[in-house]
Amino acid sequence: MPRPELSLNFNPQSPFPVLFKEMRGFLGGVVAGTLSSIVAFGSYKILFGEDKPDLGQQDTGDKQVSPFHRDVLKYGSPDQGPSVRYYGNHVLSYNQAHKIPNWVIEKISAENTKGKANRKNVKFKPDPGVEELFTASNSDYLGSGWSRGHMAPAGDNKHDEQHMAETFYLSNILPQNLDNNAGFWNRFEIYCRKLTEKYPNVRIYSGPLFIAKRNEEDGKKYVKYEVIGQNEVAVPTHLFKIVIVENAKNNPVAMGTFIVPNEPISFQHHLKEFQVPLMDLERRAGARFLPKMNVNHVQDLCQVETCDLMKKTEFDLYFIGRRINNATNLNQLQKAWNELSQKSLEPDEYIKRKYKEKYDELSKKEGG
Amino acid sequence: MPRPELSLNFNPQSPFPVLFKEMRGFLGGVVAGTLSSIVAFGSYKILFGEDKPDLGQQDTGDKQVSPFHRDVLKYGSPDQGPSVRYYGNHVLSYNQAHKIPNWVIEKISAENTKGKANRKNVKFKPDPGVEELFTASNSDYLGSGWSRGHMAPAGDNKHDEQHMAETFYLSNILPQNLDNNAGFWNRFEIYCRKLTEKYPNVRIYSGPLFIAKRNEEDGKKYVKYEVIGQNEVAVPTHLFKIVIVENAKNNPVAMGTFIVPNEPISFQHHLKEFQVPLMDLERRAGARFLPKMNVNHVQDLCQVETCDLMKKTEFDLYFIGRRINNATNLNQLQKAWNELSQKSLEPDEYIKRKYKEKYDELSKKEGG
Repeated sequence: MPRPELSLNFNPQSPFPVLFKEMRGFLGGVVAGTLSSIVAFGSYKILFGEDKPDLGQQDTGDKQVSPFHRDVLKYGSPDQGPSVRYYGNHVLSYNQAHKIPNWVIEKISAENTKGKANRKNVKFKPDPGVEELFTASNSDYLGSGWSRGHMAPAGDNKHDEQHMAETFYLSNILPQNLDNNAGFWNRFEIYCRKLTEKYPNVRIYSGPLFIAKRNEEDGKKYVKYEVIGQNEVAVPTHLFKIVIVENAKNNPVAMGTFIVPNEPISFQHHLKEFQVPLMDLERRAGARFLPKMNVNHVQDLCQVETCDLMKKTEFDLYFIGRRINNATNLNQLQKAWNELSQKSLEPDEYIKRKYKEKYDELSKKEGG
Repeated sequence: MPRPELSLNFNPQSPFPVLFKEMRGFLGGVVAGTLSSIVAFGSYKILFGEDKPDLGQQDTGDKQVSPFHRDVLKYGSPDQGPSVRYYGNHVLSYNQAHKIPNWVIEKISAENTKGKANRKNVKFKPDPGVEELFTASNSDYLGSGWSRGHMAPAGDNKHDEQHMAETFYLSNILPQNLDNNAGFWNRFEIYCRKLTEKYPNVRIYSGPLFIAKRNEEDGKKYVKYEVIGQNEVAVPTHLFKIVIVENAKNNPVAMGTFIVPNEPISFQHHLKEFQVPLMDLERRAGARFLPKMNVNHVQDLCQVETCDLMKKTEFDLYFIGRRINNATNLNQLQKAWNELSQKSLEPDEYIKRKYKEKYDELSKKEGG
């Protein structure tokens, strides 16, 4: 069956007809999967994975393996590291070949995003749980032209300094275009945090993709990506997010799947332009992301929650507000304030209040 | 620590000094790994993988996961399929994103390579155990310019038709340069089979790699590879093999690790030119291939067993011998025989005998 090709330009014309087509493919797959559980194919054996276990990687356990296969694996099965790694507020799968995560999952609520944990107190560093041979280092990123992009964002972990520190482990980081990281992706993360004001739980899956592009010269398709530093850290061509919001009964209400190119994305583009059917992401990533969820029973996030990211003015104000809030001396405070007029921005009530509070605090401190 | 860069041209000057350097790095890694098992890093938890388990992917098992993490994985942990798949005579890890294997392991002995199983009786087909969304199809390869290259070779499974049929599942196949597949790689496989005449067990690990190359124009390194067909099957830039031979006590005697570009390789090149330290392969593939083997106690395969592949004359004779053996009528037989003089080859005793036997058999059959 030819699969519909996902258009990954900024303006896919109509993701939803594609979704329905893929849905039929999905049901076919379920039937085939069930059949293959029942029919034994000659001496072909899958000893695991007949039933979906609670966690993705199947339990092995020597007893299930035949003596012959145990002998084939005499020197151990090639070890790609733990399939799942657990942290204070996120769970991830790490790719030891790419030196970046495969996926990172968080569950956030309003309380996560509030608190005193400050990213200034923590540093990017290799994950102490990743073997040296397979880890990235800060020096790989240095001077590479790529920023260290969080998958589980620091800002989702303001309630706990240790949890925030763990988001700075390089296992949670990938080489991200700086403008994308500070701009569109940042606004996307803020959008996700904002959803916690309305929904008790917001679940976010984030990760990299390496997507092929057709070369016009020879008509062939190639995947091409840069690798940086001594450790050849892979620079993904795209990033993905799945966002699921839950109601007060902790049932899923709506979800959206997004694939965003790892490049600058201007304010002209709407998040909806990057929405894709879940199955497109799954095929590209080579994983079923929600094996225990019935995705047919949830609504489209962008229909329920608009998927409008912060506008430029709001975003600029947000950053100036942050700088005002983080100012440690009157000089810094004044610089941040002056930016308002430089950018012809009208301060909102929050910024005015913050400025005054900060001014009083710092004046006292500096003996002014 | 800057890592020595592996030269992947055809003539690396001296692989072994690199090996020793890497060994120091390895010991460092072991120490660090041990420390990280003892020291608890804040709330950082690795619930699995403290001890190397018998199989690569760590046991999960719900009980070990905290209620919080179980909640984060409420919709299931992203499912990349079984970490290990078992077949009659090979074991493999399948890459659902690339639609080719990550690695394939076989253990062969002299008996495997003898028998009546004939590749003409079996067909390439999608692995019935791989979900449709993640499988390659024959049509992906058709007209792509790439051949369907076996990782566990058909010729290692002559003792059992079913085992041979399983090597034709596309889970064991990757897009391979046709000349490489029929030429150098084939001679490499024959070399491995020949080792079974001397060693009771030969263990072979095979798989693809995607290796970065420096772009002279911008000085940056890129991984670039083609993807073929509707399913975007990844064409690896390189192939690897680890070969381990064992003595009568089933202890490892010698091993060699090889990385071969996925392109034509002429008879001028010796297998030794492609030998690399195991750790170089491991870093690139993102896996420890022999977690339960002490690689310091084994000899270098190419010192013990020369690593000389079949010379051109021998190889040509081998193929003509095969065609003589497989001839189903006198016309085919004569064509194969005529090739000897066309290629100015002197038939050896084996070919002369086979020709006579076949001539008698087919003459009788054709009533000649």
